[in-house]
Amino acid sequence: MRLATVRTAEGTRAVRVEDDDAVDLGHPDLGALLRRPDWRAEAAAADGIRHDLATLDYAPVVPFPEKIVCVGLNYRAHILEMGRELPDVPTLFAKYGRSLIGAYDPITLPAGSEQVDWEAELGVVVGAEVRHATREQAAAAIAGYTVVNDITARDFQYRTLQWLQGKTFEASTPVGPWLVTTENGAVPGELTCSVDGELMQKAHTSDLVFDPAALVEYVSSIITLAPGDLIATGTPGGVGHARKPQRYLGAGSQVVTRVEGIGECRNTCRVEGTPG
Amino acid sequence: MRLATVRTAEGTRAVRVEDDDAVDLGHPDLGALLRRPDWRAEAAAADGIRHDLATLDYAPVVPFPEKIVCVGLNYRAHILEMGRELPDVPTLFAKYGRSLIGAYDPITLPAGSEQVDWEAELGVVVGAEVRHATREQAAAAIAGYTVVNDITARDFQYRTLQWLQGKTFEASTPVGPWLVTTENGAVPGELTCSVDGELMQKAHTSDLVFDPAALVEYVSSIITLAPGDLIATGTPGGVGHARKPQRYLGAGSQVVTRVEGIGECRNTCRVEGTPG
Repeated sequence: MRLATVRTAEGTRAVRVEDDDAVDLGHPDLGALLRRPDWRAEAAAADGIRHDLATLDYAPVVPFPEKIVCVGLNYRAHILEMGRELPDVPTLFAKYGRSLIGAYDPITLPAGSEQVDWEAELGVVVGAEVRHATREQAAAAIAGYTVVNDITARDFQYRTLQWLQGKTFEASTPVGPWLVTTENGAVPGELTCSVDGELMQKAHTSDLVFDPAALVEYVSSIITLAPGDLIATGTPGGVGHARKPQRYLGAGSQVVTRVEGIGECRNTCRVEGTPG
Repeated sequence: MRLATVRTAEGTRAVRVEDDDAVDLGHPDLGALLRRPDWRAEAAAADGIRHDLATLDYAPVVPFPEKIVCVGLNYRAHILEMGRELPDVPTLFAKYGRSLIGAYDPITLPAGSEQVDWEAELGVVVGAEVRHATREQAAAAIAGYTVVNDITARDFQYRTLQWLQGKTFEASTPVGPWLVTTENGAVPGELTCSVDGELMQKAHTSDLVFDPAALVEYVSSIITLAPGDLIATGTPGGVGHARKPQRYLGAGSQVVTRVEGIGECRNTCRVEGTPG
């Protein structure tokens, strides 16, 4: 199933996206759906109001996750090409909910940053409460996959030792357009990011050092993961900051973030405080 | 006013704590109260059900803040004694809501950590939505002050470059017992932390490099601060990890965290998975 949160005149709604239309699931967003223990059966069986595909306005998959957990340094080939050793534990940092945007929303470039960069990532959405999960429990707690671009203001990221302030600018992080659920064996494939039509990042999600189940297992050893929590699993090589010369996003830049088998975000950059 | 969230048989309630009893404010927690534009007048005027002081069971001041923003390296004397320069911008990192506990709850020592440490801090609670606040707007957006101990698993904090995983263990971070609101000019004084009766940290909150208004101003330049958001303003010298020999918390350790003019948290440490 492809499940999404869409904006309507009456507020957001959780929907199941079909080939011809989208079926209302009777909840205001996917967070509310995922908190129901029987959410898979309920979402599969729903047969309510239909929304026209052409008019769907995608919100972030889960608009306000309880937690957004981001992972650094997680693509094997990229770590090795940088001359580093593979890590024993994942590097974790956070983002706040207000940084999230929908799959086709404009990316807000902060007025104070000159170095806004892209980071295409596979997103994992949690579908059950888990604490101290085994690998099997962790895998079973994954609701499904989505597409994230962990847009980063490098100048703010490196102002201090902690990355948070470069990672959580308001309305900067696309997530969507939908959650592809796991019950039919959905497997994410190649991850790519293009900027203005130029391919910038390309890697296979199977190259993750810590795969989705390993990440759920590890995070759950620290704190309870809850339905709707989002894990951004890390980005491969090809970011603008590491290029020679360095490249950054500017007003009007078109960012396409894609995970094969899952979906695609298409976002245009807009400088904060300017129209369009 | 001293405002708190307390646990009752019917769930949590927001209360105004008086000398003789606590007055129910008609909201399930302080987060719900603070989202009302007129919350100061409403809280001051409330005259509902009375709760017995002796039976009050304090929850975290705001049980699930939208954001918990923590600050590193913010006490002037401690930075200078470490031979470092005063920073131009605050170091920010996050915690998740499930790490918070009430003022007298047990601190959960994670079974996997051998190095759990104390970090007494002044907490700032946000009382209005602010974005790109001026210093004056930032000061006006502060609802009040509380007491925080940013309990930290040092071994997990330093496993990777990012501190998050050492900072956000489940049920580890006392916040409370109440929020002392600002309208009568409450000014936090001396900050102390004692462990088993031994004074470990002592500093004056006026020694902050970035004071509460400066922190609200800075964070709001990155992302909207919302009512109920908690800012933990950083800790002074005297933490266990920097002592010679190093000192850490163990089962039964008694931690008293105090901010003069605001309040005191008293917490006993308990190893995860063990009784009482």
